[in-house]
Amino acid sequence: MYSVIPDSLIIKNDTKILFLILDGLGGLAEKEYGGTELQVAKTPNLDALASKSSCGLLTPISPGITPGSGPGHFALFGYDPVETNIGRGVQEAAGIGFPLQEKDVAARFNFATVDKEGKVIDRRAGRISTEENKRICEKLRKNINLGSQVEVFVETVKEHRGVLVLRGEGLRDEVKDTDPKQVGLPPLDPIPLKPEAGKTAELLKEFISQAKNLLASEEKANMLLLRGLAKNKGYPSLKERFGLNAVAIASYPMYKGIAHLLGMTVIPDLSTIDEEIEALKANSEKFDFFFFHVKYTDSRGEDGNFMEKVKVIEEVDKLLPDILSLKFDVVVVTGDHSTPAKMAAHSWHELPVLIYADTCRVDTVTKFDEISCIQGALGHLRTKDLMTLALAHAQRLEKFGA
Amino acid sequence: MYSVIPDSLIIKNDTKILFLILDGLGGLAEKEYGGTELQVAKTPNLDALASKSSCGLLTPISPGITPGSGPGHFALFGYDPVETNIGRGVQEAAGIGFPLQEKDVAARFNFATVDKEGKVIDRRAGRISTEENKRICEKLRKNINLGSQVEVFVETVKEHRGVLVLRGEGLRDEVKDTDPKQVGLPPLDPIPLKPEAGKTAELLKEFISQAKNLLASEEKANMLLLRGLAKNKGYPSLKERFGLNAVAIASYPMYKGIAHLLGMTVIPDLSTIDEEIEALKANSEKFDFFFFHVKYTDSRGEDGNFMEKVKVIEEVDKLLPDILSLKFDVVVVTGDHSTPAKMAAHSWHELPVLIYADTCRVDTVTKFDEISCIQGALGHLRTKDLMTLALAHAQRLEKFGA
Repeated sequence: MYSVIPDSLIIKNDTKILFLILDGLGGLAEKEYGGTELQVAKTPNLDALASKSSCGLLTPISPGITPGSGPGHFALFGYDPVETNIGRGVQEAAGIGFPLQEKDVAARFNFATVDKEGKVIDRRAGRISTEENKRICEKLRKNINLGSQVEVFVETVKEHRGVLVLRGEGLRDEVKDTDPKQVGLPPLDPIPLKPEAGKTAELLKEFISQAKNLLASEEKANMLLLRGLAKNKGYPSLKERFGLNAVAIASYPMYKGIAHLLGMTVIPDLSTIDEEIEALKANSEKFDFFFFHVKYTDSRGEDGNFMEKVKVIEEVDKLLPDILSLKFDVVVVTGDHSTPAKMAAHSWHELPVLIYADTCRVDTVTKFDEISCIQGALGHLRTKDLMTLALAHAQRLEKFGA
Repeated sequence: MYSVIPDSLIIKNDTKILFLILDGLGGLAEKEYGGTELQVAKTPNLDALASKSSCGLLTPISPGITPGSGPGHFALFGYDPVETNIGRGVQEAAGIGFPLQEKDVAARFNFATVDKEGKVIDRRAGRISTEENKRICEKLRKNINLGSQVEVFVETVKEHRGVLVLRGEGLRDEVKDTDPKQVGLPPLDPIPLKPEAGKTAELLKEFISQAKNLLASEEKANMLLLRGLAKNKGYPSLKERFGLNAVAIASYPMYKGIAHLLGMTVIPDLSTIDEEIEALKANSEKFDFFFFHVKYTDSRGEDGNFMEKVKVIEEVDKLLPDILSLKFDVVVVTGDHSTPAKMAAHSWHELPVLIYADTCRVDTVTKFDEISCIQGALGHLRTKDLMTLALAHAQRLEKFGA
């Protein structure tokens, strides 16, 4: 599952590695603006750093494949994103800090509205408030009973979104989603995809049946739709694989959840980039791998708002000197995938990357953007290989072979 | 055999993809002409298209490996060319439209001339005419009898070339070629490479023995040499894998045969590029994947005729506006391999590629040739990854992971 290299070559030392991850960093040119978001943004500090770094372009998964946040980040941390592909349920559970056990199966659910015939008329139950969600989850938690062999957890995520966890022996995750993915259709049955998953499917059917009765009196959230049932396969931590004492500085549950799964220490209660910077400063002596996550490049990209994404990039650029003053031995700046404002969605396009270290081979790139980085020393790199390069520059890898 | 990506991520929609394949496109500079065939050719239309596309270089198989037409095209269509490696016999059978069944084994054969001692003195029987070939094949077909358990098909390809198909239970393809590959040696025995292929080898030996007697009276074609015995493994079609309703517009049997194997609709009776263009126009609303094949770049390269290859490239360039006026959502221009006139043969060199789509990242390349494309956004790409990129630009792929 994990390459024999570099895990078997690890050296421990006291070097420090920073991964500055601007979520959804890569973009596409728009005629109106005359370039990509990174090309249009004024980024003197990033450009200065690029000028003394090795630059290149990352392919998150493989050419043409658009990554979700899970695979995008697993690759950044040196885990093969296809082999480790984490299910939606596990990702959501991790995102709310729910400590999944080995025997658990977890599914993401949406509260939804169905009509009298049981057909879905709103797959998000009018985006009920998080408070509403908490009240309803508590009702379900208290009243649903699947027998003495199975524990049931019904957890709020946000608005109409939640996580269902079943805990018991022999539970499997090969069960079909019940979300019909469009309105006008009734919820689907939780169909087992393998005979071994028959019992789990029966339990889910019973759960849905009881939930439906309990929700009948709700005005909007009178049904729920399950998807992405998954087990936590359990991943070796960054400590186990690379000897890294890692910390995650991130504001969004999803990324904190992924960091949790890989055994990072997660700094709680961060919202703004400024708070993240303070946390980085406060912890810069306590760890040796720093995952610093900026969400808003992706958010503005997903909004399709080119100039707001430009602004976020410029904001990060202004903070860069502060970050660099903390003296990391290796600095990586990149993202988990592209989110071009032009597409208002994640995309498969490569994204720029730079590695700065005393041992980096400085190329001719003097501007940090998607086009300039084509000329960089790193060329076109699979994201999963990035961690190995960072470890090498941190003098944390032995020679392979004699 | 086939990656779970992108097959499991397919979205169906009504976008249209064109693969304009100039066979043997890549070349090498010759001093006399001051550049490669593509550099010397005047290609204003290709250059204009490159200027608004993502460009790069394709490695058909892996560095240093020269592809035959089969693997070169399988890779273009997104099939791993090593894993799917199609035997010569199957390729030839497909090339003449022979409908191979699962239990068939097929071999390419050449009529040859042997001397009185049975040594090969002409491996191509003086390139007898196709008419001669047909007459002789009929004689063999009528008179050879391998018993009631095995059907024998002896089919003309062209000139001295033919296809032998044996149909019966338990036939295997692990049998050595009988072509000694040089004159002055007798034909080799069909030796089984595995014990399970012993019965097939015996049948081939008997076939050759009977054929030899029947051919004894022929002046030139008094023997035949077998190679590339193969079974049709059966490939999932472009429809099955990618949901593509594909059409092949090609004039040569070989490429039509490959298209047949992958379930494409093959337009019959096309000879010239002009006829191909008419066929493309006539069918542009009926399909969503268009394989448009130009043979003559390869032919003139194989002839070692630099300036004639340049002319073919210029001819295609002139037709490009006509082609583009049909409004494909994704246009790919490339080839299956290089055929430098300097080498008068297929070669392993990378070849230029461009992808044009609304979502392509436009790089700094303004000329479509082997050297300019080094600076392109696509970098150095394995050919087998090209289809995935095309599907992505056609909005036909879901996100991988959550």
